[in-house]
Amino acid sequence: MIPASLRWHGDATGHLELLDQTLLPARLEWIACRDVDTVVEAIQSLRVRGAPAIGVAGGYGLVVAAGEAIRAGFAPEQARAHVLARGEILACARPTAVNLRWAVERTLGVLATLPDESDAAALGAALLAEARSIHEEDRRLCAAIGRHGAAILPEGGVLTHCNTGALATGGDGTALAVITTAWEQGRRFDVFADETRPLFQGARLTAWELVERGIPVTVLVDAAAGQLLRTGRVAACIVGADRIAANGDTANKIGTYGLALLAEAHGVPFFVAAPSSTFDLRLDTGDDIPIEERSAAEVLRPLGVQAAPDRARAYNPAFDVTPARLIDAIITERGVIRPVNRDGVHAVLAGG
Amino acid sequence: MIPASLRWHGDATGHLELLDQTLLPARLEWIACRDVDTVVEAIQSLRVRGAPAIGVAGGYGLVVAAGEAIRAGFAPEQARAHVLARGEILACARPTAVNLRWAVERTLGVLATLPDESDAAALGAALLAEARSIHEEDRRLCAAIGRHGAAILPEGGVLTHCNTGALATGGDGTALAVITTAWEQGRRFDVFADETRPLFQGARLTAWELVERGIPVTVLVDAAAGQLLRTGRVAACIVGADRIAANGDTANKIGTYGLALLAEAHGVPFFVAAPSSTFDLRLDTGDDIPIEERSAAEVLRPLGVQAAPDRARAYNPAFDVTPARLIDAIITERGVIRPVNRDGVHAVLAGG
Repeated sequence: MIPASLRWHGDATGHLELLDQTLLPARLEWIACRDVDTVVEAIQSLRVRGAPAIGVAGGYGLVVAAGEAIRAGFAPEQARAHVLARGEILACARPTAVNLRWAVERTLGVLATLPDESDAAALGAALLAEARSIHEEDRRLCAAIGRHGAAILPEGGVLTHCNTGALATGGDGTALAVITTAWEQGRRFDVFADETRPLFQGARLTAWELVERGIPVTVLVDAAAGQLLRTGRVAACIVGADRIAANGDTANKIGTYGLALLAEAHGVPFFVAAPSSTFDLRLDTGDDIPIEERSAAEVLRPLGVQAAPDRARAYNPAFDVTPARLIDAIITERGVIRPVNRDGVHAVLAGG
Repeated sequence: MIPASLRWHGDATGHLELLDQTLLPARLEWIACRDVDTVVEAIQSLRVRGAPAIGVAGGYGLVVAAGEAIRAGFAPEQARAHVLARGEILACARPTAVNLRWAVERTLGVLATLPDESDAAALGAALLAEARSIHEEDRRLCAAIGRHGAAILPEGGVLTHCNTGALATGGDGTALAVITTAWEQGRRFDVFADETRPLFQGARLTAWELVERGIPVTVLVDAAAGQLLRTGRVAACIVGADRIAANGDTANKIGTYGLALLAEAHGVPFFVAAPSSTFDLRLDTGDDIPIEERSAAEVLRPLGVQAAPDRARAYNPAFDVTPARLIDAIITERGVIRPVNRDGVHAVLAGG
């Protein structure tokens, strides 16, 4: 199958289906979201994850809210208030994910275009059109990143980190879309996936997406990247991004920085693939990017199994910052930023 | 308690006790080895691991063999043949561990000093004396490494990788002995332990040893080392070694090389601690060191739990090679090699 993180089922009275990523790759289960609580729980429990994917889910979540109003038989005013209230809950499901609030607010924006007397069904239809539009835009954006990236991907093996594919977006992904696009163009090369501790997104999700697409994948522990690069089997490294500063410094999943340093040591190009919305131009350099620390349990209890003694502490930063000088190119839907510096970022983003 | 990997119980008719490291840190269980099969199984199943520790276990394993001969009522000639035959089985329990065969052959050497008519009890007594002697030498060697290392350890936090402590040796360890020796000297500093995928020796064993000694420890995923170094909380990195070439290039647990590169990028000294027996002067550089690849299951099934899809492959090199230029000092029982190059290695090893 072609992997996907979510899909809308039916018309505005239908429901949202989310692939439960916490069960992958052992089980493939879709969650039917017929109420907003189910959507919120899925976002908070990382059943759906990846900033673009949860943004798209947030948009559809508002249609789910309208469905609640329809079934409750709410009058127009009550239905509108219900959708707005549920929208605020959706937007707060993961406070750090910028895309989520952005998508919810954009989708809610359509309410202003509807007459006050519009009933719940009318609200739902308009919200569904906007949610579908956000989803479709994300698909096109992923496709553009995949195309631009495939054009600069050198011949030879590719190493990636974390999950940046269909499961993380509403389309085919960012960094992983570059790999799958090149493959679909008929090119053949070895694909290596770091397992990506602590949450194993590489082993669980990236490897699953690739085997589902029929692309052979080799998983390695994060610490084995140095030895793999030393063997000469990797021609390029490509990763996604959580946030990019104005000078090109890039925050991404923990371990990205060390990988970039290894790539430099072996003369292997290091690429970042991310939509232009990932840039936060208010931040001058990567030093301004706050580093989120997550729970000790992710480190001390891998996959739910106790690994360390009770009295051990844990240090669990969710991401690190790769300096722009270690990044050979940033691939966006608007084109490729190369060299990666303040001027390069400005030229591509301003030209879009 | 003070951690230890093994101990001999009683006189020559006694038995070997091995701490079952596969159960740590969840359970603390000693295996009473009253027959050689139990010793061999423990070595093969990594219940006892670390080249020095399995060497010491091999020596005591011969005393266990003599005990079998005593209980079987073997005549002198039969007893001697039995011990020699069991010795060969012990020496082959892990073919790649050089220390094991060395310790078994050295212990068997005492048989040549005994008259042919020596009975099983006499053989056992002589074998026990030699096995204890190897054990005691390993203790002294660890203590010397700890002392030399503590003398050059800078003030501030220390980051280590894998397990190089009491569990890996017959004494207090190599790299970890440097940390615990400095601590016992009254110095106080943060200790960070990489979890060390795929087998989690850092989280399971190093963290356990440290908390048992009352030394606070913070565990991190291997990929978080870069971010930790960026925070400035680490003043030194110290690791062990599996094999060191004549020019100082060092093979050690997978991930060591990337850590050394990160340490260099942050101006943090990178130390290797290892007994002089770790040097293989027949090897000109690290390029001559073969890299053992281990089972895919270690990567794809962390702690026995399936993480990756069935069709994913794995790349699982057990160690990597850190070039001598990234190593600030190699700490041996004979003294400190600094700078690390062919001449430095020669000067310290030849002077011992």
